[in-house]
Amino acid sequence: MTDPAGTSVTSPGSRPGGRTARVRAQVLDAVRAELAENGHDGLTVEGVAARAGVHRATVYRRWRDVGGLLVDVIEAAGETDWRPPDTGSLLGDLTALNQEIQESLVVRPSFAVALMAASFHSERASQAQTRLWADRYAQCAVLVERAVERGELPARETDAQGLLVAATAPVYHRLVLLRSAPDPRLPEQAASAAVLAAAAGAFTVRRERT
Amino acid sequence: MTDPAGTSVTSPGSRPGGRTARVRAQVLDAVRAELAENGHDGLTVEGVAARAGVHRATVYRRWRDVGGLLVDVIEAAGETDWRPPDTGSLLGDLTALNQEIQESLVVRPSFAVALMAASFHSERASQAQTRLWADRYAQCAVLVERAVERGELPARETDAQGLLVAATAPVYHRLVLLRSAPDPRLPEQAASAAVLAAAAGAFTVRRERT
Repeated sequence: MTDPAGTSVTSPGSRPGGRTARVRAQVLDAVRAELAENGHDGLTVEGVAARAGVHRATVYRRWRDVGGLLVDVIEAAGETDWRPPDTGSLLGDLTALNQEIQESLVVRPSFAVALMAASFHSERASQAQTRLWADRYAQCAVLVERAVERGELPARETDAQGLLVAATAPVYHRLVLLRSAPDPRLPEQAASAAVLAAAAGAFTVRRERT
Repeated sequence: MTDPAGTSVTSPGSRPGGRTARVRAQVLDAVRAELAENGHDGLTVEGVAARAGVHRATVYRRWRDVGGLLVDVIEAAGETDWRPPDTGSLLGDLTALNQEIQESLVVRPSFAVALMAASFHSERASQAQTRLWADRYAQCAVLVERAVERGELPARETDAQGLLVAATAPVYHRLVLLRSAPDPRLPEQAASAAVLAAAAGAFTVRRERT
């Protein structure tokens, strides 16, 4: 399960490379599992090394500290072959995207939530997470391009990120900040509101004039 | 400055009561200052007591631990006389609300952000924050009622919280999770998208059928 923030709790299917790549995969799997189970507060180089079955010295040499482990696990998420949904309609695509997000946030323990919590405490992890979010929103811009081609959105240039944030932010807001109970209708409701706003021109670039 | 999450960094203007109320005000001011400066990680009963000029034993007796201090500072935020904006239009009201939110999130140090970070680590603080958010969204429902009375929204029943979350979530999302640079146009853009969606019926209650 990979959500658009790339906070995959599973590892990529293919692991090219030899021992170095294998060790990295073992260590990052251990970081994800430790983060999800114990949160950032419980993350230690020793715990990760023990869980991964790798010598502590190896982890210290390659990742240096907990911050280095967090950055690498976030960067590894960016290397997975995640693709935005392609359902044939903008509403369908954004709903599917929100369903992925909701699933990643409501699963217990949630690696995605643990990573957000960690980013409040580690500037390096925060920066890595910001780069990953930017990448994923850039990947999702194709949803907007397809919608314009299908005539679902005004032909004028659309602020893709504005539209994507409007569609997805309520899911994060309710589940992460408001800690609302999961609602199976939420993904479609949030997507639908953004689509209606977009159809009314809320994200056409003329609104972005300086 | 109080944002709709009630995460005021200033204390209420009036402090009725005697010595007990005064001590509480001093201690909670100290919690807010310590949180904003050092974050949740740096919050200790000793540090709060020293900053407040109050004996440690007093703090332990009344608040017990850091969790108790966090809960009380959140509950105190709910006791302030914050009122939702009343500008004469739904777009104006939601823009003003978002401006308050943006200011509370971009100020450095941000007490509001520190509190959100703390809520990831303290279940009691998280629950107190959830109650406060619920209260503030309930207070803001009047914005929606006024908009219906003015004929800005369809007369059918509107899901006020859905509209308010759609209007405000992008501000939190960009500034807290995406760590975007503050954009002076963001409050109005996010408000405007929600108003357009609402006018198109995105939040009328028929959409909420089960």
